[in-house]
Amino acid sequence: MSNSYTFAVIGGGSWATAIVKMLCENLDEVGWYMRSVYAKEHILRNRHNPNYLSSVEFHIEQLKLSNDINEIVAYADYLIFAVPSAFLSKELENLNVSLNDKVIFSAIKGIVPESSKIVGEHFHDTYDIPFENIGVITGPCHAEEVALERLSYLTIACADEKKAEILAENLSSRYIKTKISDDIIGTEYAAMLKNIYAIAAGIAHGLGYGDNFQSVLMSNAIREMKKFIKKVHKMKRNINDSAYLGDLLVTGYSVFSRNRMFGNMIGKGYTVKSAQMEMSMVAEGYYATKSAHDLNEKNGADVPIIDAVYAILYENKDPKKIFKKLTEELD
Amino acid sequence: MSNSYTFAVIGGGSWATAIVKMLCENLDEVGWYMRSVYAKEHILRNRHNPNYLSSVEFHIEQLKLSNDINEIVAYADYLIFAVPSAFLSKELENLNVSLNDKVIFSAIKGIVPESSKIVGEHFHDTYDIPFENIGVITGPCHAEEVALERLSYLTIACADEKKAEILAENLSSRYIKTKISDDIIGTEYAAMLKNIYAIAAGIAHGLGYGDNFQSVLMSNAIREMKKFIKKVHKMKRNINDSAYLGDLLVTGYSVFSRNRMFGNMIGKGYTVKSAQMEMSMVAEGYYATKSAHDLNEKNGADVPIIDAVYAILYENKDPKKIFKKLTEELD
Repeated sequence: MSNSYTFAVIGGGSWATAIVKMLCENLDEVGWYMRSVYAKEHILRNRHNPNYLSSVEFHIEQLKLSNDINEIVAYADYLIFAVPSAFLSKELENLNVSLNDKVIFSAIKGIVPESSKIVGEHFHDTYDIPFENIGVITGPCHAEEVALERLSYLTIACADEKKAEILAENLSSRYIKTKISDDIIGTEYAAMLKNIYAIAAGIAHGLGYGDNFQSVLMSNAIREMKKFIKKVHKMKRNINDSAYLGDLLVTGYSVFSRNRMFGNMIGKGYTVKSAQMEMSMVAEGYYATKSAHDLNEKNGADVPIIDAVYAILYENKDPKKIFKKLTEELD
Repeated sequence: MSNSYTFAVIGGGSWATAIVKMLCENLDEVGWYMRSVYAKEHILRNRHNPNYLSSVEFHIEQLKLSNDINEIVAYADYLIFAVPSAFLSKELENLNVSLNDKVIFSAIKGIVPESSKIVGEHFHDTYDIPFENIGVITGPCHAEEVALERLSYLTIACADEKKAEILAENLSSRYIKTKISDDIIGTEYAAMLKNIYAIAAGIAHGLGYGDNFQSVLMSNAIREMKKFIKKVHKMKRNINDSAYLGDLLVTGYSVFSRNRMFGNMIGKGYTVKSAQMEMSMVAEGYYATKSAHDLNEKNGADVPIIDAVYAILYENKDPKKIFKKLTEELD
């Protein structure tokens, strides 16, 4: 495929690695910024990321790899951010190249802790990027399955659907199907909220609730997500589309989800601190819970699951008691 | 709880055993018909069903057990049928007690093969039972988790909501929450369709599709279910309620579901016949697929998943090719 645009991925984790792989199916060259000098050198020498999706082999000549974020931002027309939301501000601190005229897609599932905003809003408000240059890439998609080239569906959302289409074309391949959407707010909130519901699923599992309850929890979660998002950004959307329900399911039912694992530890009796230490990184849903809760204080949607997770994570309430109460509110 | 009504369960399988257990939490006596003389004698001697949920211990004095369906039908005001749909007609052949004035609840997830009707319609059309005396008990609920007294939610549907309420009260307990509904047609079709989607999930798994695809399949399945049911019986319903989406999820994501297992074998290359022989019983979804397909021929909803499963099970088409085509129709 010939392209008049250049594309780059910001981030060195598993989702970033998966997106680079997808782009390499279509492009002669893909820009790739990662912080780790070691990882970059390892990739150049051994053709795979030492830390994430290490089974994926790259053709080095296709990669424009750099540890300098400015070099990569300067290089690309389309920037895909795939760093953990907690590190985004820190990465951007080093930026001295302008983001004007860049199309920015977020593949980050979460809230920027410093601004309590979803990534699209953060770029819009902090860097003055117009919304028609901001987009979102959402699943349902485990990066690990992209590595295995198992068929996966992505939704590419942008207020300017033409830009969504251009990115979608360059991500599509034998094992990646794409769909475009103009609901950047809704898809991004869905991607963030699902992590809270995955924590809830984990807590329930840790407390000993079974599959019958999990299905009721997920069925309530999607109804709650619909109400939450409707308050944030009212528009016609089918909450059962893959970008919303599919994304919720792939995370909520995954035993590999970090958020679910984090919740599971809480349910089993770990304190929030010790669960975080045990996992050696903070689950995205932890920040999302506070942001969603605070935002909904103003919006006033009825969100008993988010409230329950918030009470457990931020008000030190007893998971067992909180979930007992929650079970009375679900149906 | 004091009751002016008598209740009985027809069937000796795991779901029947679970429902008897639920009723025993509330009633002094529960009628229970089962075909097997051996199982009945075993229960009376050892206080548990030898074949299903054998960890559940009954108080014998609470059970009015019989191998004579007429004795049990004569005994009860509320009859709960929980035999496999394929055996319902055969059981009813022996009936010489009138079903007039009985309230009949179906806990059967499937189609009566002889009439190609859902159970409620079968009773209505064949036995002239008015719809206000017909109801449905649906999950999401694995019987095995009821045995473990894990929190589960049931939906009790009846056109006459008062009857639904009476049964719901007598099923509710510490570990069973109930909700009533007047959508007997929709809940019963949902319970039947989910088995087709569980077969589809099994086929996909057998063919090597991963979790990303499963979540897309389930997200498409619930949209398809909504369209199918709307054609059959249009009314206001939230397809994401537990009785529809929850029931789909608990089955579609269960590795214990017989329907999913059946599909999995087909995906792995077994013929339909050999998969059925291997399982020593026919998965409910097998009949459901034909009925749903035939019914939808008239109704004309867009149901690519049901069509795909039908083509594989009844037209001897290659699962791999059919699913490749299906992946193009999902989003």
